[in-house]
Amino acid sequence: MSDWSIRPAQPGDEASILGLIRSLARYEQLEHEVEATPALIADALFGETPSAEALVAHVGEQPVGFALFFHNFSTFLGRKGLYLEDLYVEPSARGQGIGRALLRALARIALERGCGRMEWSVLDWNTPAIEFYQTLGAVPMSDWTVNRLDQ
Amino acid sequence: MSDWSIRPAQPGDEASILGLIRSLARYEQLEHEVEATPALIADALFGETPSAEALVAHVGEQPVGFALFFHNFSTFLGRKGLYLEDLYVEPSARGQGIGRALLRALARIALERGCGRMEWSVLDWNTPAIEFYQTLGAVPMSDWTVNRLDQ
Repeated sequence: MSDWSIRPAQPGDEASILGLIRSLARYEQLEHEVEATPALIADALFGETPSAEALVAHVGEQPVGFALFFHNFSTFLGRKGLYLEDLYVEPSARGQGIGRALLRALARIALERGCGRMEWSVLDWNTPAIEFYQTLGAVPMSDWTVNRLDQ
Repeated sequence: MSDWSIRPAQPGDEASILGLIRSLARYEQLEHEVEATPALIADALFGETPSAEALVAHVGEQPVGFALFFHNFSTFLGRKGLYLEDLYVEPSARGQGIGRALLRALARIALERGCGRMEWSVLDWNTPAIEFYQTLGAVPMSDWTVNRLDQ
């Protein structure tokens, strides 16, 4: 069992986060959709008006996983929530509880900030992820479909 | 054809916005989920660190519709997007293009702010809404399901 750690992303992490985003996109068979650059990620996370926040996981000095999130808002609750855009752990680092620890850290942030709920999206064929989320008590919002209008 | 107008929400609109949120929740058969109060809506929209923004539509002095939105973030694009949490027009005010005008105003905001895309969720049985969104060229992200973990 290797030594791993989790901490908030900090300036300088953008290249390794983008590397992990690319690995995730490959796994999701969506690599052709990746247009992000290190500069865009740095600006989004560490710029003057950040659009998102991230946690990164390392094994030793090696970045092996990340969770990227922002706040959404529920009109029904009248409260903000935490939306997890991406959660990823490299295959070589799985099975050590890193993904679960990232989710636990996010749940702690959500509670501290008074969020009503935590949400994220999962691809319908990603059975390992779906089964993992079920063990956490997550409820699939199966009767809703996201619509997208691209620029 | 009555005279209608659209403008950004301003302090004092919270009670009428909450009334419209309740009407929407009734239509979605989710009124039991509404916990929001005027104070929570006012804080979210007009507080020190707003969680969301809204446009409101009036016919004369009467509030008849609203669109409430916030920014999300796409790691693949490396850019923020506009997420439309709620879009609602009272039945009595439909058929005059108010919903379409709200969406057009949002698309303009998204473009002005450099957003890569605009997204929203629709209930699978809400056929009138689904058909309306199709006329706009919206793409349903049918292979994704949102998972929710409540507090």
